[in-house]
Amino acid sequence: MKIVVDAMGSDDHPGPDVAGAVQAAREFGDTIILVGDKAKIEAELADQNTTRLPLEIVHASDAITMEDKPSQIVKNKPESSMHVGLSLVKNGQADAFVSAGNTGAILAVAMLRQSGLGRIPGIKRPALGVIFPTKYRPMLIDNGANADCRPEYLLQFGLMGSMYVERVLNIEKPRVALISNGEEEGKGNDLIKETIPLLASSGLNYLGNIEPKEFMNGAADVGVTDGFTGNLIMKTAESVASYMSTLIRDELMANPISILGGLLTRSAFKRVRGHLDPDEVGGAPLLGVDGVVIVAHGRSNAYAIKQAIGQARRMVENQVVEAITSGIASER
Amino acid sequence: MKIVVDAMGSDDHPGPDVAGAVQAAREFGDTIILVGDKAKIEAELADQNTTRLPLEIVHASDAITMEDKPSQIVKNKPESSMHVGLSLVKNGQADAFVSAGNTGAILAVAMLRQSGLGRIPGIKRPALGVIFPTKYRPMLIDNGANADCRPEYLLQFGLMGSMYVERVLNIEKPRVALISNGEEEGKGNDLIKETIPLLASSGLNYLGNIEPKEFMNGAADVGVTDGFTGNLIMKTAESVASYMSTLIRDELMANPISILGGLLTRSAFKRVRGHLDPDEVGGAPLLGVDGVVIVAHGRSNAYAIKQAIGQARRMVENQVVEAITSGIASER
Repeated sequence: MKIVVDAMGSDDHPGPDVAGAVQAAREFGDTIILVGDKAKIEAELADQNTTRLPLEIVHASDAITMEDKPSQIVKNKPESSMHVGLSLVKNGQADAFVSAGNTGAILAVAMLRQSGLGRIPGIKRPALGVIFPTKYRPMLIDNGANADCRPEYLLQFGLMGSMYVERVLNIEKPRVALISNGEEEGKGNDLIKETIPLLASSGLNYLGNIEPKEFMNGAADVGVTDGFTGNLIMKTAESVASYMSTLIRDELMANPISILGGLLTRSAFKRVRGHLDPDEVGGAPLLGVDGVVIVAHGRSNAYAIKQAIGQARRMVENQVVEAITSGIASER
Repeated sequence: MKIVVDAMGSDDHPGPDVAGAVQAAREFGDTIILVGDKAKIEAELADQNTTRLPLEIVHASDAITMEDKPSQIVKNKPESSMHVGLSLVKNGQADAFVSAGNTGAILAVAMLRQSGLGRIPGIKRPALGVIFPTKYRPMLIDNGANADCRPEYLLQFGLMGSMYVERVLNIEKPRVALISNGEEEGKGNDLIKETIPLLASSGLNYLGNIEPKEFMNGAADVGVTDGFTGNLIMKTAESVASYMSTLIRDELMANPISILGGLLTRSAFKRVRGHLDPDEVGGAPLLGVDGVVIVAHGRSNAYAIKQAIGQARRMVENQVVEAITSGIASER
């Protein structure tokens, strides 16, 4: 298996991207193709022990930044690491693409028919699935690829999420639910209400509407939502977790007794952070494009990049793209 | 001032509702009119020291439950405590209405033209404003009254939220922002994009789009959103806070050292909970109806009910309804 890693992706690129690729090559034994500024990648590799590791470099003369607008990238930066990397997958020279770069740009480039992967036939809109970092690891889909959705898109998000979870996380007949502001009939906005009958007659293991609390506590394996709402749910969850951590740290520092208590509870808090750590999860699969694409967090460290690569290889191994392709074909 | 309290509102009614009313009568000196099953209210009052407190009882023969559908309540339960209580405000016999009952039902009954309050002239949709329980206490509006919104509604939510915050929380020229999945131009769904020019030319102190993190950290005083998204943001925030608390408690119990540490950090955690306590905030004002209505949490205790009553009296004192009425009139 060959996996392309965008060396110019993360906020601190190419350090974490290259180091994560080295870890993955060592742990998984797959060939990792680092795409980006060759000189910079080589400089990073020089700091690592790469003896006999299956690492390749493909030069890309340009890089996409977080400031680049997705609408302009496609034309303005045809030599970016994303363009070059995704075209390797497109041309069959690699099996998967991993990037911690600008999500909008990855989407835009992946959707190109020429240099990108394009959509799986029948898929209306690709979607970002993200694993919610609670104990139950449910998938929220869409996490921001589509701000405005139609009921048919949400139906397909449910289908794609279900196939991913079934094949990559080994959950049989994944339970699919719509994320809504209430479980009762009549709750939800128009989009939710129009999606309910589509999911109910889809053949998926559809449970109905659930609220964020039930979703987080494992009531469903796949939570379906439009990308605007989904992205705000994820961002709210991250913000509250971070706000609470800061609050706890500040209060623990407030007096000598709690400082001592804080020292004694340090390992417990480390475990708490471990439970909630998005790095453990890896990245977000971009489902519905015709190839394996994993979008990692911009602030990924080497470990998170390695995890994202691991996720990409499980998607390849378990033929998620093939499953979605035949699943959608049979729906039509 | 006379404030009506729905004695049949909270999940554990009438206990917390009556006890909160007694606390409020004692602390504020305002007359509290308890509306509901007279015998049950009197039984609760018998347990309290109510000597010389300005408390009145108005009997209502019916009560609305969480299971009642708002669409059916209006016709089926015309003698409910909500109908009776709101009509007291409508008829000028009281100045405000506080309930910890079914939010959808409060909305539906408050909107009735005959027995309810109806809308302030010019207001398209009333909205629930909720104070986000972080240090900065920003207001999120709408928190669930309107699942589907149009740009003009969001504009009015901004206007109403701004007036509430200015008058009740004494914040001059409140900073108003749209809650979105990114701050950059081009982010947001169609609703957000169409609302931006309306807010930008509104005369409000409009900042642009902000993400949940910035909102929670005090970047705006009023965060404007549709009710579906707003409700999911609030529910996600509550769920994550509760999930983290459980996780921390479980991990602290995992070994003797951390149990000891947990004891030493108990006061720090109590302060953390205090910071995040929605009970401190009181309830959510229902803005845009022609009268003061505060919706408290269903699981309110006596203290939360008292706080909600305090919020109602500040809304009356600071003439928020009058300000919205003249503000909207000048916009037209």
